[in-house]
Amino acid sequence: MDNFVCYNPTKVVFGKGTIKELATLTPKGKILLIYGGGSIKKNGVYTQVMETLKGSEVFEFSGIEANPHYETCMRCVKYIKEKGITFLLAVGGGSVIDATKFIASAVYFEGANPWDILEKRGRNITKAMPFASVLTLPATGSEMDRAAVITKWVTKEKRDMSSDLCYPVFSILDPETTYTLPQRQITNGIVDSFTHVMEQYLTYPVRNQIADRFAESILISLIEEADNVASNPHDYDTRANLMWCATLALNGLIACGVPQDWSTHMIGHELTALHGLDHGVTLSIVLPGTMNVMRDEKGDKILQYGQRVFGIIEGSKEQRITQAIEKTQEFFHKIGSPIYLSEVGLDQSCIAPIVKRMKDRGWALGERGTITPDKVKAILTDRLGK
Amino acid sequence: MDNFVCYNPTKVVFGKGTIKELATLTPKGKILLIYGGGSIKKNGVYTQVMETLKGSEVFEFSGIEANPHYETCMRCVKYIKEKGITFLLAVGGGSVIDATKFIASAVYFEGANPWDILEKRGRNITKAMPFASVLTLPATGSEMDRAAVITKWVTKEKRDMSSDLCYPVFSILDPETTYTLPQRQITNGIVDSFTHVMEQYLTYPVRNQIADRFAESILISLIEEADNVASNPHDYDTRANLMWCATLALNGLIACGVPQDWSTHMIGHELTALHGLDHGVTLSIVLPGTMNVMRDEKGDKILQYGQRVFGIIEGSKEQRITQAIEKTQEFFHKIGSPIYLSEVGLDQSCIAPIVKRMKDRGWALGERGTITPDKVKAILTDRLGK
Repeated sequence: MDNFVCYNPTKVVFGKGTIKELATLTPKGKILLIYGGGSIKKNGVYTQVMETLKGSEVFEFSGIEANPHYETCMRCVKYIKEKGITFLLAVGGGSVIDATKFIASAVYFEGANPWDILEKRGRNITKAMPFASVLTLPATGSEMDRAAVITKWVTKEKRDMSSDLCYPVFSILDPETTYTLPQRQITNGIVDSFTHVMEQYLTYPVRNQIADRFAESILISLIEEADNVASNPHDYDTRANLMWCATLALNGLIACGVPQDWSTHMIGHELTALHGLDHGVTLSIVLPGTMNVMRDEKGDKILQYGQRVFGIIEGSKEQRITQAIEKTQEFFHKIGSPIYLSEVGLDQSCIAPIVKRMKDRGWALGERGTITPDKVKAILTDRLGK
Repeated sequence: MDNFVCYNPTKVVFGKGTIKELATLTPKGKILLIYGGGSIKKNGVYTQVMETLKGSEVFEFSGIEANPHYETCMRCVKYIKEKGITFLLAVGGGSVIDATKFIASAVYFEGANPWDILEKRGRNITKAMPFASVLTLPATGSEMDRAAVITKWVTKEKRDMSSDLCYPVFSILDPETTYTLPQRQITNGIVDSFTHVMEQYLTYPVRNQIADRFAESILISLIEEADNVASNPHDYDTRANLMWCATLALNGLIACGVPQDWSTHMIGHELTALHGLDHGVTLSIVLPGTMNVMRDEKGDKILQYGQRVFGIIEGSKEQRITQAIEKTQEFFHKIGSPIYLSEVGLDQSCIAPIVKRMKDRGWALGERGTITPDKVKAILTDRLGK
């Protein structure tokens, strides 16, 4: 087992009717509600939040995009300074919470150019405004982690940052807020959570029983509940399990004492930045390619995954690895997420620009740093489809 | 799934050589080292800690007992006030950390009688001195939870307390410190961890996939590693897995969104208070009795436990429940922990005083409050043995 630090001070308040807890959890001061395109006004969450905060001084900033833009965040920073805001409340999904993390850090950033926060991946954050979240879309885990992903629209660069100063003070997770989500967002959320687990699990064995079994627990639960949510979308327990799975997939727990990969995410980020694909869609396309191209290095863990998650025990080592990859693809396809670039209208021509970006940055990805730009080319080529 | 709050601000620093991190983690001020009977002087941990804290103003208070005494804790409180201590560092196992939690609270207690903290189970704690721990015995989970158990020696009363103010600021877990533990303490620790999980798992189903699978993950890992530690006591990964299992068994994670029992612990506490049995020994004796007497109410979860942890799938419902109880007993016996009162020299005569205590306090235990004093009598009678 590898050495690790386990630390996560976010208080998660989970369950039916928990939005009303905002009344006691939110500190005094000038509160800024940060949200997206207005879906929270349609599903009643906005009204619930505003009712609960009656009596507080509440300001609003809306219009945070999916894959939140640096430019939009900087407009929000300006607004916060103008109004003398003291506490941020993100209401929405991962994009809104990620934006809020960057905004909270950028407000106090003393350098000349706040994009530097993303260039340095958050290591230069020295202070952040306290913030909390009301989660309405289970997917990114941002509600209980220290990371964010921000896109500079003008140059189409998507970068991540993280800092111990970027944990939400609290996050409210009411599974009932997810009943009205469109199927596409549910599917994206399941793929995102599943891939978060795989990035921390599918590396090489270090005899960490707990990290492995916890990871497999989340994978199995996601597969089971994905079936349930399709057949019975208003089942509370199904929604609750999916929501809690998404949080646990990326709150640091299953990362304790194991190596991590994240190459599928890094490659996927480029597909989103250059072609505007949904984050979840990029992951279901790239992950099976990463598994196939890295099948030797990752073989031991792919075999364990195949056996414990899908019950694959027959055939040669190579056959079982192939079966595990096929089962993963079947799962993504079954829930309606593409597995080939051709399914989203991309072809061979999309590959070279991504490989060039990797080369320009000198990136070597993966748990061993062996996923070179050439390997990225092989992974994307594996994903061309028919 | 039940509603829940998930909150745990303790920073766990886990792995080989992590005691040296004390140098950066410990705040400035007057540090009080709190420890037990001196085993940390034999295994080198005391020297490592003192070396690391060289340059700080360090005081010492030793002599914390197993099942720490209220009277000893109060002597420590007096010492803290005399010396103007500002930070407590518990070095040892659960008893030392539990004592430190009570001491940290009692220092600031404003009522006439600090025993009141235990009478009110910690609800009246309004302030506590910050403290941290260096764990040397994986068992109680105290290094990452908000609870403590203290015994008033003069009246033989064993009581628990808990408070959000009683989380360690940080805890250092170096599995190498556990190599020199006597087998008896290893066994007690495994039984304690196992039973912590069972108290939160073996109730009734609420369709919480994650809590169930995480609990089963810890149970399976404990069973596997108990075998390994017997055959290869100096294997680092085995020690690391046992240590991390013990922490996760009681840090609040697997309690999220499920009912909890704790009757086995409450009955066990009386056996320790009245007869001085090791805590772990009381648990391996009582737990199979709780399972057997409550087999109807707990039937669904006992069946799930039998299937997922021990692979029991054949036979009638009643037969499979019986098999699951037998497998649990076999596991405890195999690692050297007794399962009958007769094995520790107790007989029928020990039962009535415990039942009377339960009656006097008006206690009804268990996840549904259905474990009445009569049921406690039945559980202990089930455990008489030959």
